[in-house]
Amino acid sequence: MQALQERILRDGRNLGNGILKVDNFINHQVDPQLMDVCGREFANRFAHVGATRILTAEISGIAPALMTGMHMRLPVVYARKTKPITMPDTVYLTVAPSHTKGRLVELIVSPEYLQRGERVLIIDDFLASGSTIQGLVRLAQAAGSEVVGIGALIEKSFEGGRQALAHLKIPIESLACIVSMEDGEIRFGDE
Amino acid sequence: MQALQERILRDGRNLGNGILKVDNFINHQVDPQLMDVCGREFANRFAHVGATRILTAEISGIAPALMTGMHMRLPVVYARKTKPITMPDTVYLTVAPSHTKGRLVELIVSPEYLQRGERVLIIDDFLASGSTIQGLVRLAQAAGSEVVGIGALIEKSFEGGRQALAHLKIPIESLACIVSMEDGEIRFGDE
Repeated sequence: MQALQERILRDGRNLGNGILKVDNFINHQVDPQLMDVCGREFANRFAHVGATRILTAEISGIAPALMTGMHMRLPVVYARKTKPITMPDTVYLTVAPSHTKGRLVELIVSPEYLQRGERVLIIDDFLASGSTIQGLVRLAQAAGSEVVGIGALIEKSFEGGRQALAHLKIPIESLACIVSMEDGEIRFGDE
Repeated sequence: MQALQERILRDGRNLGNGILKVDNFINHQVDPQLMDVCGREFANRFAHVGATRILTAEISGIAPALMTGMHMRLPVVYARKTKPITMPDTVYLTVAPSHTKGRLVELIVSPEYLQRGERVLIIDDFLASGSTIQGLVRLAQAAGSEVVGIGALIEKSFEGGRQALAHLKIPIESLACIVSMEDGEIRFGDE
């Protein structure tokens, strides 16, 4: 998607080691207009999958998932990384390695909001190694839901997440696909 | 605001000890349409304050802040609770007691996105004791910004946050003001 690619080139920073800083418009400061456009694009691309609920992970997935949910008129559930006191005693929990944190993080969803028979669309900010998204897939499956699509704002194709998720045989969409971050550059390929 | 009050009565849960569970539509599952309506309402109420930026705290403040930012066409900055590797070495950091976590949490903002001379509108999910919002006010002031308004989806007036913030002499708006949660009830007063 042109608008997102242009924004990445203008305001994104290649910090080396495959780390893309997008704190200017996604991860710390958020551009609501850009997120709105991205949410509309996801809604178009996943219009046919029959989703009944959107699942994401706190924190950075919330903005794109919320805007996608608005355009698809679907509720959004964000997996928590710590269990708040308002959550029931028994929950769905999985662990996933966090690239940027260098440790395992927990992903927790209450059975109240992820139930058998849901058709779940997963939306997140990044598709890199795919480990967070695989964690969300496990949560959905544990609940007896079916994952019907996966969307990420930014894909780093050189980290292999798409291949790791290919066995699901569902549509995977990214709005900006980075094929290389070598030599301080940011190079896009086909989405 | 009628829509939010009705939703609290329908889907909110009074867990006792002043704890209101709104995981069905704000804090775990999010209703994007409701957040959109709330964001538009904040945009109307704060149309006159001349805000240049919206500040909130992760995690639950992001949804209402994002929708407010969309309607006001302003960037949204969410204070982080842990410092990600993409953040510069030197940041604005304050600590605030968390009611629901029972401990101090850090609130961190990068100087890149909060600068001298900004007119900051603070948006959060709850106004209870006001301690998180006071933390956000300190961050804005540390950056040399001026806080020009404070908006919360839900106010628990019996916890005194509004009084704690009164010295700022700026508009404080809540969309649903709960005056009592005694005896398992949820009673609203004037916003």
